[in-house]
Amino acid sequence: MLADQTYRFEHDLLYYECNRTGRMSMEMMLALMIAASEKQNQDLGFDEDNAKKSGGGWVIINYETSIEKPLPIAGDHIVIETRIAAFNRFFVMREWQLFDQAGELVAKVRGLFAFMDLTKRRMAPIPEAMLGTYADEAVKRMPRLKFPAKLEAGDDWTRRDYRVRFFDIDANGHVNNARYFEWLLDALPADFLLHYRPVAFSMNYHREVRLGETVTSQASPVEVGPNVETSHHRIEIDGQLCALADFSWEKI
Amino acid sequence: MLADQTYRFEHDLLYYECNRTGRMSMEMMLALMIAASEKQNQDLGFDEDNAKKSGGGWVIINYETSIEKPLPIAGDHIVIETRIAAFNRFFVMREWQLFDQAGELVAKVRGLFAFMDLTKRRMAPIPEAMLGTYADEAVKRMPRLKFPAKLEAGDDWTRRDYRVRFFDIDANGHVNNARYFEWLLDALPADFLLHYRPVAFSMNYHREVRLGETVTSQASPVEVGPNVETSHHRIEIDGQLCALADFSWEKI
Repeated sequence: MLADQTYRFEHDLLYYECNRTGRMSMEMMLALMIAASEKQNQDLGFDEDNAKKSGGGWVIINYETSIEKPLPIAGDHIVIETRIAAFNRFFVMREWQLFDQAGELVAKVRGLFAFMDLTKRRMAPIPEAMLGTYADEAVKRMPRLKFPAKLEAGDDWTRRDYRVRFFDIDANGHVNNARYFEWLLDALPADFLLHYRPVAFSMNYHREVRLGETVTSQASPVEVGPNVETSHHRIEIDGQLCALADFSWEKI
Repeated sequence: MLADQTYRFEHDLLYYECNRTGRMSMEMMLALMIAASEKQNQDLGFDEDNAKKSGGGWVIINYETSIEKPLPIAGDHIVIETRIAAFNRFFVMREWQLFDQAGELVAKVRGLFAFMDLTKRRMAPIPEAMLGTYADEAVKRMPRLKFPAKLEAGDDWTRRDYRVRFFDIDANGHVNNARYFEWLLDALPADFLLHYRPVAFSMNYHREVRLGETVTSQASPVEVGPNVETSHHRIEIDGQLCALADFSWEKI
């Protein structure tokens, strides 16, 4: 990584990574991006197990994404490139770019992560040995990502409950951050999801979700009609905020 | 396929294909096996789209499976081999073998499929052109797979409801048969799933499940204690049977 800090992850998209529209689902786009960064961390000798031994782990704070083109379909050979775009003692900004078969840019995601002391459940400095593997210099001020609007759910918002399932929990023992996208988007009408494609989103994580809890996914009303639409989302547990998101949509 | 009727599918297992036990989930084992057979069908020129043009599609009737070794973990390079083990005018028996990194057999699955006229919603003869690509001779009598016990749920069974979500529906417009495994197994206690591994199962599909429906997954009580345990499962919609399954478990 010191020589070339961009990690390249190749994948043939499988049918179950695509949804009813025939295209890659958002959950899977994020899940594959996380897979790419775990591979890079492994390459650097700092996979999850290693991070855990240091008593720490990465926690996602927010994502900002732009989707330039319709997402790939099953069978497509895709490439995800990822790199650490900036870091300081406590935070890392990661960047992913998704390319289609023709090598064209489909989506660009940036995510801000904090390093956490998993025992004390609070932020901790990133281990020195890990920082030493990053090619660039630490930055004083982290670039800022766009946050979703902090809206309260109106009476006209959709509300759907999701009990966290055993298989929502990954090998790290928590609900994977990609999993939230199914809860977020399933709250929108099926008819809307079939006729609109996401072109951008911002997402902000407030609170971890655990096995056995029931989240309520709330989504602002959307209209099938205009060419461009925005949806606002809020995930809560017993009225306590867990995540916020905004999506921009374009008619297919 | 006429020359060599076994199709070989290679895959590097990703973290989201594994669950909290760190091992590949059953849903993902089946999903990858279906991916392997779709690839083979594509190779033969009879992918889903082509089958649909003929007005037909494959419907799963039942699976019988033995799992010889603990399932692979994230990062493992796995191989799935699949072939048509037997067929006649209406049915196909498919076989899959899952091999681990060392090339050792991990699991063997057989599945019986019927060809359906999707407009008339009833069984139809497999198109001649498709049959012509199969290397073997048609059989008069299809081999029989083990069926799960047809038990009514007792008062001591667990019951959990699952509303079918937009993202449960794949590009073919129905709930993918691998998806049922999450509903089946999530009805078992988390403590049991963490300490037992599946060694065999049989599964039988009775009725299709559609978007917006709510399935009830029912599971017989299991005990954390004995070395070997069997669980019985029943999926219903409004009291109407959709699927039956039996799993055998071994203490990890």
